[in-house]
Amino acid sequence: MGDKIHQLLESTPEVINVGLELFARAVRQQGGQVHEIEWKPPLVEPDQRALALFNDPTIAAANSEAVTRMMRAQPVVVDVARARDVIPGMTDRTFLHAGPPIDWDHASGPLRGALIGAMLFEGFASTPEEAMRKLESGFIELAPNHEHSAVGPMAGVISPSMPVYITVNANGTNRAYTNFNEGIGKVMRMGAYAPEVIDRLRWISEVLAPLIGQALRRSGGIDLRNIIAQALQMGDECHNRNKAATSLFYREIAPYLVECDAPASDIAAVLRFINSNDHFFVNLAMVAAKVMADAAHGIPGSSLVTTLSRNGTEFGIRVSGLGDHWFTAPANVPRGLFFPGFGPEDANPDIGDSTITETAGFGGFALAGAPAIVQFIGGTPADAVRATLEMYEITVAEHEIFRIPALDFRGTPVGIDLRAVIRTGILPFIDTGIAHREPGIGQVGAGVVRPPARCFTDAYQAFQQQYLAHHALTTDARREE
Amino acid sequence: MGDKIHQLLESTPEVINVGLELFARAVRQQGGQVHEIEWKPPLVEPDQRALALFNDPTIAAANSEAVTRMMRAQPVVVDVARARDVIPGMTDRTFLHAGPPIDWDHASGPLRGALIGAMLFEGFASTPEEAMRKLESGFIELAPNHEHSAVGPMAGVISPSMPVYITVNANGTNRAYTNFNEGIGKVMRMGAYAPEVIDRLRWISEVLAPLIGQALRRSGGIDLRNIIAQALQMGDECHNRNKAATSLFYREIAPYLVECDAPASDIAAVLRFINSNDHFFVNLAMVAAKVMADAAHGIPGSSLVTTLSRNGTEFGIRVSGLGDHWFTAPANVPRGLFFPGFGPEDANPDIGDSTITETAGFGGFALAGAPAIVQFIGGTPADAVRATLEMYEITVAEHEIFRIPALDFRGTPVGIDLRAVIRTGILPFIDTGIAHREPGIGQVGAGVVRPPARCFTDAYQAFQQQYLAHHALTTDARREE
Repeated sequence: MGDKIHQLLESTPEVINVGLELFARAVRQQGGQVHEIEWKPPLVEPDQRALALFNDPTIAAANSEAVTRMMRAQPVVVDVARARDVIPGMTDRTFLHAGPPIDWDHASGPLRGALIGAMLFEGFASTPEEAMRKLESGFIELAPNHEHSAVGPMAGVISPSMPVYITVNANGTNRAYTNFNEGIGKVMRMGAYAPEVIDRLRWISEVLAPLIGQALRRSGGIDLRNIIAQALQMGDECHNRNKAATSLFYREIAPYLVECDAPASDIAAVLRFINSNDHFFVNLAMVAAKVMADAAHGIPGSSLVTTLSRNGTEFGIRVSGLGDHWFTAPANVPRGLFFPGFGPEDANPDIGDSTITETAGFGGFALAGAPAIVQFIGGTPADAVRATLEMYEITVAEHEIFRIPALDFRGTPVGIDLRAVIRTGILPFIDTGIAHREPGIGQVGAGVVRPPARCFTDAYQAFQQQYLAHHALTTDARREE
Repeated sequence: MGDKIHQLLESTPEVINVGLELFARAVRQQGGQVHEIEWKPPLVEPDQRALALFNDPTIAAANSEAVTRMMRAQPVVVDVARARDVIPGMTDRTFLHAGPPIDWDHASGPLRGALIGAMLFEGFASTPEEAMRKLESGFIELAPNHEHSAVGPMAGVISPSMPVYITVNANGTNRAYTNFNEGIGKVMRMGAYAPEVIDRLRWISEVLAPLIGQALRRSGGIDLRNIIAQALQMGDECHNRNKAATSLFYREIAPYLVECDAPASDIAAVLRFINSNDHFFVNLAMVAAKVMADAAHGIPGSSLVTTLSRNGTEFGIRVSGLGDHWFTAPANVPRGLFFPGFGPEDANPDIGDSTITETAGFGGFALAGAPAIVQFIGGTPADAVRATLEMYEITVAEHEIFRIPALDFRGTPVGIDLRAVIRTGILPFIDTGIAHREPGIGQVGAGVVRPPARCFTDAYQAFQQQYLAHHALTTDARREE
């Protein structure tokens, strides 16, 4: 015995470290060898009476049903129309926006900028100042896209006369809407509203969108899930890299555009506009994800996260089995790469509905398939692989259709389980565009971010409470039998 | 001492094995531990008097010059014309073909099939039988594409009235030509010549090619190196996977097509033809590589390989410093994946000029960036990475412009050094389409293959002889001083 202690003190220590890297570092600094076991404490201490929910087969079954509906939803973009004419519950004075509900007073710079832009576009104001006064006075009703079957990147503002894509679920009954991509830099969705921004929106509304609508009707609809699946094998993750998906959409639609009843110069201009913007497809990737996520929403007992979204001030999530309630917390600020002339101090907190892509099992969750994206968002190709591998820890399935060649065609991690986020302490990984914090400027970079933990801890408290209530009722019912 | 021997016999042996895996296996089977050092004997025993050529700084300098010209050549496709009107040295009775020189008697099935197809297309015969008789009688002069600044995939047959792309070197003076891609399956380049094959060639000649020519002239030329560089970051290797490159070319040319003076139905048909064929770009990838390889050819003293090509019977290579001499040997048969209904017994030996892509540092050399290709050619994504890593052993540079994100944006291995092939025994890695061995059938699969070693050993003997002769002259000259 004494010998063994002696031996232990004489030899170089070999240590197993569970959790905090701090302890491992101390041993390593003293020349010891450390085997690290990654472990984090759960995000909240679960109620002991509700511990069973982590292994409850009825929750697993509900999640399986939800994620299956998510994977099998088949979004097909079929047409283009005026927002007011097709989006349910929209009035002539409704402006939709990204993220959870918010009012003008709490809106961040880029959201304010985009709302001003929409006022000018709609002709509700002729100067930014007039637009601001009217917005302050409650002239416009603000409502989240997500509550109107819609999504929009960054500020995500959709005003009544803007054109929107109509996307149906060919394997279900739901549909979803989104606006048109304007390019990068000084664009309305990033909070810019200069005259050239409004002029571009007018051209989109008058020339590009009607032509794309005509072409889509001729085509009989374009299968977006199919395009996303191919693009994920061509270096896109279809959130911040849409170069392949934009190309494939362009390939599909160009012959129908050529056959449209329109001047060749307009058709060529539409093709050049798409060709000049590798992000053109992101709105379509998002509306596809929205169709998928909505198909998975509202399954009783399911802990699947069906919305991740941000309005530039708050991050909000919704859970399949918890109805339409938003669980919100102040949004984090992304870190990443900035365009020349801008830096971290210019970055607005996380903004946009585009996290619907991560919700549906691609975007940041498919980063392993998009190594070239690190030139845009920072990090290394190895980081990109790690991000995807980590997401398998908090998801309930590997996607049947979205597969990553570099991971031996493994399906992407899909279906975020609220319980797994709580148990592991791992928050969803998001890659995202970064808007300037002031209105009127636009995009300043791109990077990565995680949601605030509180969205998940609050959602978990609600889920746990519902579980306990349901369990109590069941027990009562059993007692009464 | 006796103790040490005793110890050796008592303990489990730990062995270092250099070279042949056979020895390692024997030790392993007896429970020993083996550390393997990869090593192969050189392909030939070099002449002792010429050993210095492996470290000669003037050869290194010549190779550096050659590979720099290869990387900096900037192929731009500018126009389309009739082969006879633009290809140097072509007569009304010349048929160009892939690979080193060959005559009708030695031609393999797919090359014969394509030559028959060209006879029918040109109106030199009205039945396959008549075509064969005339080909046997020497009615046509056969010549290698490579000797006429041209390349063509598989059989590679270019007949006088076929349309060809004209590609110039914007950073040099050379230019190159190639024919149009017909799609996959039953196509002339794979040896098919049925009426629908000839009809498709006519449509290409009368509708597609003139329209693309008109669009190219309007565009001022499309930079092919730029498209290849992007596509290598989008899952293509630009030999057997050209999905991204085809998309990017289509994106560039579509607006100019729309502006052409032609019926919308023809323009739409051209776009649909390209959109239906992810291999459309391969001819353009090849002609780009030909421009690059030719720019590197003819540097005195350079051991850089500037041609790898096959005619379906023989594999041939040419070396920058050895003039226009072909070093040939019987071609190997590729192994890979076969289309339904076909198998290895149907495969013709290796055929086509498409190995010009590997010559110029992409294709099989860039396989690490194209993991999804294994669904087409067989193997695993890990094999694809290994193939690229191995090619760094026999190349003189990492490409300045062609980069692989998954390898941390490392440049592709470029510039095969004949000396390195001899020294390491590593032969270039090629991925390729597979044609049926009989004429008239077409493509049956795709796979991987290596050139026969003899092309390289013969070329090395010539290189060594030239080196010794030069060295002797220099020594004589010195003596005379």
